Amino acid sequence: MNFCSQCGASLTVRVPPGDNLPRHVCDSCNTVHYLNPKVVAGCILEWQDRVLLCRRAIEPRYGLWTLPAGFMENGESAVAGAAREALEEACAVGDDLSLYGVYSLIHVSQVYLMFRGRLKDGYARPGEESLEVRLYAEDEIPWDQLAFTVVHETLRQYFAERRTGQFHHHLGDIIREGQQFRIHRYY
Amino acid sequence: MNFCSQCGASLTVRVPPGDNLPRHVCDSCNTVHYLNPKVVAGCILEWQDRVLLCRRAIEPRYGLWTLPAGFMENGESAVAGAAREALEEACAVGDDLSLYGVYSLIHVSQVYLMFRGRLKDGYARPGEESLEVRLYAEDEIPWDQLAFTVVHETLRQYFAERRTGQFHHHLGDIIREGQQFRIHRYY
Repeated sequence: MNFCSQCGASLTVRVPPGDNLPRHVCDSCNTVHYLNPKVVAGCILEWQDRVLLCRRAIEPRYGLWTLPAGFMENGESAVAGAAREALEEACAVGDDLSLYGVYSLIHVSQVYLMFRGRLKDGYARPGEESLEVRLYAEDEIPWDQLAFTVVHETLRQYFAERRTGQFHHHLGDIIREGQQFRIHRYY
Repeated sequence: MNFCSQCGASLTVRVPPGDNLPRHVCDSCNTVHYLNPKVVAGCILEWQDRVLLCRRAIEPRYGLWTLPAGFMENGESAVAGAAREALEEACAVGDDLSLYGVYSLIHVSQVYLMFRGRLKDGYARPGEESLEVRLYAEDEIPWDQLAFTVVHETLRQYFAERRTGQFHHHLGDIIREGQQFRIHRYY
């Protein structure tokens, strides 16, 4: 961030009056430009004991498998965002979405809201951002070809709980430590 | 948003290639500037059957009562954000925070993550953004002087459930309709 999006003047990183963190502040009109975490909304959609995964046709993690998920848009709800991503990435309709896991990805300043629900009619086809889509039974999940730690964690919890017949809500932080990721599970 | 924060050139609102929504796109360097919802992290902190409210010393809703809550910062977790807001607004330490309600405020593109927990030692003092702070019993809550619909809804659910002795997670959308707000409760 180099220039003020309001007036086009240059920016300086400094702590504004009354604040306690450095911000990008305009040298001319004094507008403070905050940077805040983005929300990613996604979902596990199940049909006949299998879950929908998409193989990514975009970077990062081109060619690896993921749950439908993407950045929430202004003016939509979290549920609508998760449903939209399933539609865009897998031409899939999600029914009965409920919030399953909330994960803070601290290193990239993202908050994942992961829902679970039913895949309507078992129907899915690749959207523009997917090379292919597939319904996976638990013993077929390509664990070593998943795109993101948060996807791995969500699927792991999901299958562990499905065996017990009862789903709970989950809250966690995913923390990068060098090349590894550590998961702090609150519950 | 008028100017490109990367190069300072002017912006045009148009649908970028491969996208399906109008974005602010730079006329010179073609950077796409996305606008996404912000996360507000907040909490209900309880001590001896009373909950902590803060009377706002800032706009909007100056002078009205609210739960500690504010925009999450880059590089922090949702739990840390909620705890930080309690500390900043009420010099209060929240223990054992768990996620209670997730609300999409569609009209302002905000996602509220409302936690609940214990107020450590029952201690609270006004921070810079609060005129006063107070521990309220249920029958003392100033329902007609609450700052925001999402605060009203969170407190309403909380007290209704506390009577039953069992708390559940809640998911909802808050939708502006003229001067009124409608709450869509998923659960």
